[in-house]
Order: sequence, then C-alpha cells, then structure tokens
Amino acid sequence: MNDTNIIVIAEAEIKDGMVEEVLPQLEALVESTRKEPGCIEYNLHRDLENEKVFMFYEVWESKAHLETHIEQPPLQNLLARQEQWFAGPLTARSYCKVR
Amino acid sequence: MNDTNIIVIAEAEIKDGMVEEVLPQLEALVESTRKEPGCIEYNLHRDLENEKVFMFYEVWESKAHLETHIEQPPLQNLLARQEQWFAGPLTARSYCKVR
Repeated sequence: MNDTNIIVIAEAEIKDGMVEEVLPQLEALVESTRKEPGCIEYNLHRDLENEKVFMFYEVWESKAHLETHIEQPPLQNLLARQEQWFAGPLTARSYCKVR
Repeated sequence: MNDTNIIVIAEAEIKDGMVEEVLPQLEALVESTRKEPGCIEYNLHRDLENEKVFMFYEVWESKAHLETHIEQPPLQNLLARQEQWFAGPLTARSYCKVR
C-alpha cells in the first residue's frame, strides 16, 4: 500500500427474502471489479450479526481509478436496482491509510 | 484468508482539538496489536471527508483470537478513555469473508 491508495468501506443491507437472488449479483460484481485497472483489493464480507448486511473492503491505486470504477456498468447496474434489492441506500466511506 | 477468519471494521471520531494528542495512541495500539497472536492484519485509516474519524481494518485468525485481543491492556486502556478522547462511542462490526 502506498500513500495515494484509497480504501473504501461500502455496505448494503439486502431486503428480506432477497439474499439468495441478490448475493450472486454482489459476487459477480467482485469478479468483474477485480479485473478493473487500479483495483488492488476488492473483497465481499457478510456481517456476523445481521446476515442481510454485506460489506465491501476495497483498495484502489488512486482516486482516479476509484472514480473510473464507479462509472463502470457492473456497479452502475447494481446502483440502478438499489430500491428493488436493498433495505436502504448503499453507504460508502473513503479513507487513506495512516499506519 | 480462510473461513474461520474474522474481519472487523472499527471506527472512532476523536474530539475537536484532540487529534494531535490521541492519534499517537491509536498508532501505538496498531504496533502492539500486530504482535498479538492471531492478528493477520491490523491497519489504521483516516476518513477522507472527516479528518477526526479513524477506522481500523482488522483480520483475525479466529473469534477466540479476537476475543483475547479485546481483553489486552492496550485496547482496554483506550476503551477506558473513550469519553475523554472521542466524540462518541467506538463502533465495531465483525464480518466473515464471502468472496
């Protein structure tokens, strides 16, 4: 990791009864995103206390690479279905590494 | 990473005017925690939109290793000073890796 890297924590809660349908879409997003330029790490996690909540831990080479990613079809398609699949808006915070 | 690993996202907002005093304490916690058994990854980050907010990304070999960590003096000392140093309670969520 170097100073220009951007770390993102994004989180989404899938609607009741839709995990089986939506989880494969999140997994497909992981596979396609890992091939994108500047994607250093992109991992999907499940909240141990709420099985409908999923968290992406992302490491991007630069802000520019992250911004390009956000415009790509796989993520845009997911964002377009936010209201249909998720119990609330997706959240995403960006960080730099301190230590 | 394997299936028993536990990923933790912990976050804290330092009180106004106290970052200079508290940040070295968070950095010291990183150094001591990385030496603890079962600590696979333990990184400190700063929120790019709110410079008083810090996030720990942690990967633990197992739940037992994480629970042992929580009892260790460095973290306990930090938790004991929560009200003095932080603008609100520290938050921590635990996850397993899905993909």
